Amino acid sequence: MIRLHHSPSSASMAPQIVLEALGWPHELVPVDTQAGQQRSEEFLKLNPNGRVPVLEWNGQVIFETAAICWHLAEQAPEAGLIPAIGDPLRPQALKWMMWLTNTLQSDLILHFYPGRWSQTEAGAAEVRQQATARVNAALFQVQDQLQAQAAAGQPWFLGDRFSILDVYVFMLCRWTRHFDHPARGYPGIAPFLKHMLAQPCVDRVMRQQALPQPWV
Amino acid sequence: MIRLHHSPSSASMAPQIVLEALGWPHELVPVDTQAGQQRSEEFLKLNPNGRVPVLEWNGQVIFETAAICWHLAEQAPEAGLIPAIGDPLRPQALKWMMWLTNTLQSDLILHFYPGRWSQTEAGAAEVRQQATARVNAALFQVQDQLQAQAAAGQPWFLGDRFSILDVYVFMLCRWTRHFDHPARGYPGIAPFLKHMLAQPCVDRVMRQQALPQPWV
Repeated sequence: MIRLHHSPSSASMAPQIVLEALGWPHELVPVDTQAGQQRSEEFLKLNPNGRVPVLEWNGQVIFETAAICWHLAEQAPEAGLIPAIGDPLRPQALKWMMWLTNTLQSDLILHFYPGRWSQTEAGAAEVRQQATARVNAALFQVQDQLQAQAAAGQPWFLGDRFSILDVYVFMLCRWTRHFDHPARGYPGIAPFLKHMLAQPCVDRVMRQQALPQPWV
Repeated sequence: MIRLHHSPSSASMAPQIVLEALGWPHELVPVDTQAGQQRSEEFLKLNPNGRVPVLEWNGQVIFETAAICWHLAEQAPEAGLIPAIGDPLRPQALKWMMWLTNTLQSDLILHFYPGRWSQTEAGAAEVRQQATARVNAALFQVQDQLQAQAAAGQPWFLGDRFSILDVYVFMLCRWTRHFDHPARGYPGIAPFLKHMLAQPCVDRVMRQQALPQPWV
């Protein structure tokens, strides 16, 4: 039994796309984050951090988006969504996944919720401004990686194989869609985002969530 | 050839302890972060983020502390420093590693470098105050996990097996040693920290770095 506690347009998008890529039947459990359901007593038993996504997977409860994606990929070695142990690409995949979650994703969270790190309006405005600048700088690193791959004729973040890194990068880039300098404006990122939108696993999730445009 | 670019008391401590736990010969390359060597042209070629640690490992360059620890553990399955794929503990290890790096470690970085997220002194002071409060709240989650294990007679963060999670938790707890409410003051964390200090792999690193007391 696979059950994904999710909310449209949230971090649950990445594991949902991974589940679609694997073609694994799963139940989607909506969490109304606008109404604060993620802070309900029941939900906090699943994830004491009060955040979606949470994956219930064969009796285990797994939270943290990057962990859920990595775990799902490891359960399906035949799908090749993450390089196997021993593959020279594996440490690179680990490196990027950690950086994406603790640097790019963290600064995106600071951009969206600056009030968690400051109690005054002026302070929050400052935090948002700095976080936004850091996100934009991080996007240049994402672009460098994608451009290096493209120069070698490889369409994906890790090279010639579609992986959970692509899903993660896509989701985080999407989060910048209302920025003054969104990821789609980076010439080395734009083709990648278009390529991702053309993947059936991505398209299915965008339609399931009935999201407004722009999707990225 | 294993070469760890490191700086005393920095995030390079975790991979250094892991290398000691594995007993793998390695070269330590000091990076003088006080003098800004991590921002030198040469170092930025290794890690464009300008941060230690960096691991050079059989011709590959790996950055991100959590990635380096995880990679080393995967290279030595016989040491059992991380549950194997298929072990029910593995998704829990993934979950905690992601949370430790993108939540507890991220907020510790905000505490130590609030000026990266605010340009005024007042703003930085606010960020530090909030980040410190968030670290302290996260330490309660660490304590909950350690106490649940201790109640079951298990001394380690993941249960009865020493893992890279213990190393990571130890390092992050150590970073709070000068806080008003340091991790060693949490009754459910204190015994774990003592137990860690008694491990030969930890003791060797503390002595090699010639660190002043308190060590945690």
